[in-house]
Amino acid sequence: MFIAQIITLYPDMFPGPLGQSLAGRALREERWRCDAIQLRDFATDRHRSVDDTPAGGGAGMVLRADVLARAVDHAAAMAPGLPVLALTPRGAPLTQDRVRQLAAGPGVTLLCGRFEGFDERLFEGRAVEPVSIGDYVLSGGEMGALVLLDACVRLLPGVMGAASSGDDESFEQGLLEYPHYTRPFEWEGRTIPEVLRSGDHARIAAWRKSMAETDTRLRRPDLWERHEGARVQPPSGARRDKD
Amino acid sequence: MFIAQIITLYPDMFPGPLGQSLAGRALREERWRCDAIQLRDFATDRHRSVDDTPAGGGAGMVLRADVLARAVDHAAAMAPGLPVLALTPRGAPLTQDRVRQLAAGPGVTLLCGRFEGFDERLFEGRAVEPVSIGDYVLSGGEMGALVLLDACVRLLPGVMGAASSGDDESFEQGLLEYPHYTRPFEWEGRTIPEVLRSGDHARIAAWRKSMAETDTRLRRPDLWERHEGARVQPPSGARRDKD
Repeated sequence: MFIAQIITLYPDMFPGPLGQSLAGRALREERWRCDAIQLRDFATDRHRSVDDTPAGGGAGMVLRADVLARAVDHAAAMAPGLPVLALTPRGAPLTQDRVRQLAAGPGVTLLCGRFEGFDERLFEGRAVEPVSIGDYVLSGGEMGALVLLDACVRLLPGVMGAASSGDDESFEQGLLEYPHYTRPFEWEGRTIPEVLRSGDHARIAAWRKSMAETDTRLRRPDLWERHEGARVQPPSGARRDKD
Repeated sequence: MFIAQIITLYPDMFPGPLGQSLAGRALREERWRCDAIQLRDFATDRHRSVDDTPAGGGAGMVLRADVLARAVDHAAAMAPGLPVLALTPRGAPLTQDRVRQLAAGPGVTLLCGRFEGFDERLFEGRAVEPVSIGDYVLSGGEMGALVLLDACVRLLPGVMGAASSGDDESFEQGLLEYPHYTRPFEWEGRTIPEVLRSGDHARIAAWRKSMAETDTRLRRPDLWERHEGARVQPPSGARRDKD
């Protein structure tokens, strides 16, 4: 069973929306476990403080390294060997590759920030990997944790079933997915592309590949560049080295 | 009041975690409204079908353009003039700039996909903007909608208060935010950097700027390149044109 531990000031947010639909059924089928840990339980003063003002001044509050480390150590004792990820805009962008790695493992411990963020010494004192779900700012790490867990849970054995193999999905080949169409055949004067009704599987596959490539090139030149770089050059890092 | 309309097969997921903490208080204070719309209500057959098999074959199911369009038209009638965004990995990456634009407007209608996605004709027949929260695959658009709304709501007037001005945050200057420190002064032998205890505001500001630049360059060469490009070249698009 995949173990998700979430260290947060808002344990009631979990499983939250992950208690419904695909992830909810998987939770009831015990394909994964969702353990929310209250960060405040690891404060040591009588006010149960978890944060303090930023050293050097500035707005907001910073989560204390000592309180965070105690919570991380507790989580590690409860479920040894899980990778620990902290949701923060300063982190490495989450990718589908990283999601696959995590989903193939025993689980994950997620650390959710609030306020201005984490005392940076946490990342020196503990093996905590900063990760970001995107280039925007959220009110805390909880939404990021929900996103990361949703992405992992759908990949667990038995969760998606045969409904979706995953091979054609966006990002699986470093490309966006091709566009989809379904009935009705004609809608407001717009028809389904002829090739998709041809029954010619080779033509359909070629059309889809070409659409995936065109859409990636036009919509996501950044992805396209990486995709082309990986094709024409040695697999790892060579393109970046030239910059 | 900022109006959020969410078209979804899982209306019970909303407001969900957005009913707590910062966003929850703002909801109770009527700074925003969260209206979930059941997509299934816009089906017209007796099975209330919203999806059908993909034209051309393949796994999964595709949401029907006609059903989606009826739901979008209903949402537009309920709250005219809101931008309509569909959460899909084929969309443009969500940025903090786009979040700011949306938060400054009257609200947003969000369309959540499930299964294999949307019939592509929807995007030709209606003004629906495809948007992606990151380069990973989720079980549906609902988590993306929660993320997008959380990002918007915290920027609404009166929500964050003076606690966080936002100016120093990650992505606001095209850079990651600088690292934070707080008490205790020494933790496990690690001390807060001396400069932050100097009381010299100019030195502190210079150190923070330098750290933000260094961390962005090392952790996010993609952001750094855009940041440098914006500095040394004409403001819009010139760098991309050269590629």
